[in-house]
Amino acid sequence: MPILPEELRSSKNEAPDHGQRALAEITALLRRHLLIEGLAREQIEETPLDELQTSLLEGVTVQHSLAELREQLNALHPADIASLLETLPLNERLYLWDLVRADHEGEILVEVSDAVRGSLISTMDTEELVAAAETLPTDEIAALAPDLPQEVIDDVFEGLPIEEREHLRAAMSFEDDMVGALMDFEEVQVRPDVSLEVVFRYLRRFDELPTQTDQVFVVDRGEKLLGVLPIQVLLVNDEDKLVGDVMQPPPVVLLQHEKADEAAAAFERYDLVSAPVTDTNGKLVGRVTVDEILDFIREHAGEEALAHAGLNEEEDVFASVWKSFQNRWQWLAINLVTAFIASRVIDVFSNTIAGLVALAALMPIVAGVGGNSGNQTITMIVRSFALGQITTENARQLFRKELLVSLLNGLIWGGVMGVVAFLLYHDLALGGVMVLAMTLNMLLAAFMGVLIPMIRVKLGRDPALGSSVLITACTDSGGFFIFLGLATLFLT
Amino acid sequence: MPILPEELRSSKNEAPDHGQRALAEITALLRRHLLIEGLAREQIEETPLDELQTSLLEGVTVQHSLAELREQLNALHPADIASLLETLPLNERLYLWDLVRADHEGEILVEVSDAVRGSLISTMDTEELVAAAETLPTDEIAALAPDLPQEVIDDVFEGLPIEEREHLRAAMSFEDDMVGALMDFEEVQVRPDVSLEVVFRYLRRFDELPTQTDQVFVVDRGEKLLGVLPIQVLLVNDEDKLVGDVMQPPPVVLLQHEKADEAAAAFERYDLVSAPVTDTNGKLVGRVTVDEILDFIREHAGEEALAHAGLNEEEDVFASVWKSFQNRWQWLAINLVTAFIASRVIDVFSNTIAGLVALAALMPIVAGVGGNSGNQTITMIVRSFALGQITTENARQLFRKELLVSLLNGLIWGGVMGVVAFLLYHDLALGGVMVLAMTLNMLLAAFMGVLIPMIRVKLGRDPALGSSVLITACTDSGGFFIFLGLATLFLT
Repeated sequence: MPILPEELRSSKNEAPDHGQRALAEITALLRRHLLIEGLAREQIEETPLDELQTSLLEGVTVQHSLAELREQLNALHPADIASLLETLPLNERLYLWDLVRADHEGEILVEVSDAVRGSLISTMDTEELVAAAETLPTDEIAALAPDLPQEVIDDVFEGLPIEEREHLRAAMSFEDDMVGALMDFEEVQVRPDVSLEVVFRYLRRFDELPTQTDQVFVVDRGEKLLGVLPIQVLLVNDEDKLVGDVMQPPPVVLLQHEKADEAAAAFERYDLVSAPVTDTNGKLVGRVTVDEILDFIREHAGEEALAHAGLNEEEDVFASVWKSFQNRWQWLAINLVTAFIASRVIDVFSNTIAGLVALAALMPIVAGVGGNSGNQTITMIVRSFALGQITTENARQLFRKELLVSLLNGLIWGGVMGVVAFLLYHDLALGGVMVLAMTLNMLLAAFMGVLIPMIRVKLGRDPALGSSVLITACTDSGGFFIFLGLATLFLT
Repeated sequence: MPILPEELRSSKNEAPDHGQRALAEITALLRRHLLIEGLAREQIEETPLDELQTSLLEGVTVQHSLAELREQLNALHPADIASLLETLPLNERLYLWDLVRADHEGEILVEVSDAVRGSLISTMDTEELVAAAETLPTDEIAALAPDLPQEVIDDVFEGLPIEEREHLRAAMSFEDDMVGALMDFEEVQVRPDVSLEVVFRYLRRFDELPTQTDQVFVVDRGEKLLGVLPIQVLLVNDEDKLVGDVMQPPPVVLLQHEKADEAAAAFERYDLVSAPVTDTNGKLVGRVTVDEILDFIREHAGEEALAHAGLNEEEDVFASVWKSFQNRWQWLAINLVTAFIASRVIDVFSNTIAGLVALAALMPIVAGVGGNSGNQTITMIVRSFALGQITTENARQLFRKELLVSLLNGLIWGGVMGVVAFLLYHDLALGGVMVLAMTLNMLLAAFMGVLIPMIRVKLGRDPALGSSVLITACTDSGGFFIFLGLATLFLT
């Protein structure tokens, strides 16, 4: 049905919020409802029997507000409901989850973040979970599987036709960061020896083509991938031509065991909408679409940002205190050990400090500025590794550049602090020690800021994880040692 | 032309590297060539006249190696050349840039990062730049424009037909983070009163449809957007039907002045390949495609990671020392000021420290662990703001949760360090002060870790920028004050 221009225009003039306002409205509705419900419940508890009629009236109001909430909620796109659930504290989130239409539950579970998914699944029984999973295509069931109880997976598996069972088994066998985990099985396949007209007729038999179908895949009898037929090529060519004559070599062929971030880089570089996935024998097994890549990149970038601070995984902001504690304690414990070592370094020089207490006041400057400078270096190096701009081979040039930047920073800011220290304590030697210590600690920061991620990449580890804690450990202990060591040499 | 299955298979079995190997080969070739060239030059300088013949032979080798390099380089996809240039140090990068085919230069300039683009443009004269820009569609010229000298822009502008001049002027008027900056003008428009057959015929007249065309846009005579006609709908419907009868309301309509990250969220949420862009009157002005969104998200995520450490913009890892210094000095200077304040806090308590030097050794533990804990909190809060999971409205719950997590961490780790301090210094009161100070400083860290990004969001600023420096400032000065203050109260 055509939409009237007026309708479209009015909806556009209001606000380009892509559903943000609808979400805010439902949140308001939810809170109003919870308030009404809470009031009604209080009343029922306190109401003497003769006022029951009033309380029944209140009951009608509660029912009405609930119905309104439910209706507005289920008018939303499942992706919008997912994003609404993300923003709600646990109690409100679970209240709303109960009101969601059963046939949307599966899709919403796929859309929400890991942390929120866990909270939703924990309220559902086996039957509900099986029903929710069964509304999904196999690749999405596989994505949910790690969070589902085994008996749910078994039940779902039993209910699938043979071919889809195989798909599910295949999809579940891949790690999160493999192409196989992003793959779906909705690719459209055609043979090279049919005419474009036949392809057109074949496509018309679909009620709806799978989403993000920008090309169909040309395969032989053994399902070996021969080429791709972009829909655009199909559209601009004569219907009599054969598929084999107009098909193109695929710009990218992914392997199911490949790393997903290489696939993401290929999508970005070649501006793809979909790409075929084959096994090592060249047999077409599925396809990856750009919407999955978009989700992957967004999630991955988030993990990188969190990893710097030593947070292991996506933590739900409204997660329980206990869960948050578990996510954070390891790197705090590591930090405690490194801080303890730094403390022992200071303790070695306690006589020096006892002789000149100004040292105790100045030493955190040396350590702190070094830590900040090191954090800048390590953040940039980690980022460049992620972008593939550097490899462990151009190490020498990086070291040279970072050391020079630090030397410059050290001399300038060290010089400034040296003058300040001289003015404060009227001690020229102290000022000199300050300049030297700051410069040396910033050089150490640069050196370790390049070395730490390099070593971790060589070892095949994530260079970002806890990088902020590690670099600070070096610049604290190192800074105290350099500063107090120099002070012991030159000031006592 | 059909590709033989054998060809496809052999290319697939080798390595699923999506051009990585080709890039490595060219890098090797480049380095070999530079070596040969260097040797040849040395020889010419040192060669007596009678050995000129040999040296000429060497010259042939140089020419040959150069030709090979040039050929292999220009066989690459421009996006691959761009990514190759990113990984090379400045001298090698510029050497290679000289060898790139002129008609690829424009596309490569669009693909590389801001920092690398600057280095490439600085070697080109006006004429070369104009030639490069003229190979591009207007939306990409606009993307380059901020890095081009004004006279280049003027020249390019003069060379454009009237309609494209308007497009360029429009595209250049948007900020980097607006939808208008991501928009292109290659949308295909149709009228509602024509049949699908007419649309088919219209599409066949294109040699090639614009990339990522998953839908055509239905407009009236005034170019007002009436709806969209997905190619998939076009394919599965009868050719006799009218566009107006099968067109759909667009799932998302973007406005040109909207924030690009809202557009990105809409693409992610609704799995879009393209979306129409209108002005405030509903007139279709362009479209945004998912490849632009992919680039935007990738860049944006990088900026967020860098912002934490107080790096203002994407810094080329091989940038000059001076440029790197400029990018980093501001936050280092801020850090210097905050470290100085922390130092003054310590100085206030110099008598307490003189009385008990152990305090000087223990105080960095209190400050350091608080800083790390605060960094975890602020990183998570900033991340959640970016994902739209929290708003300044759910502040109370967040404060409550973060304070509880910190209380738990503070009591546990503070307790551990209290015992350690007692064992080291045989001073029960010192142990008690340690527990109390660590707990209080971690509570401060949690409070500021939520408050700082909240305030910045309220002020409309980027919550990530320098967040690591700011939180450390609080936990350092705060930690020293709390610890030394408690020590003064209870230990002297």
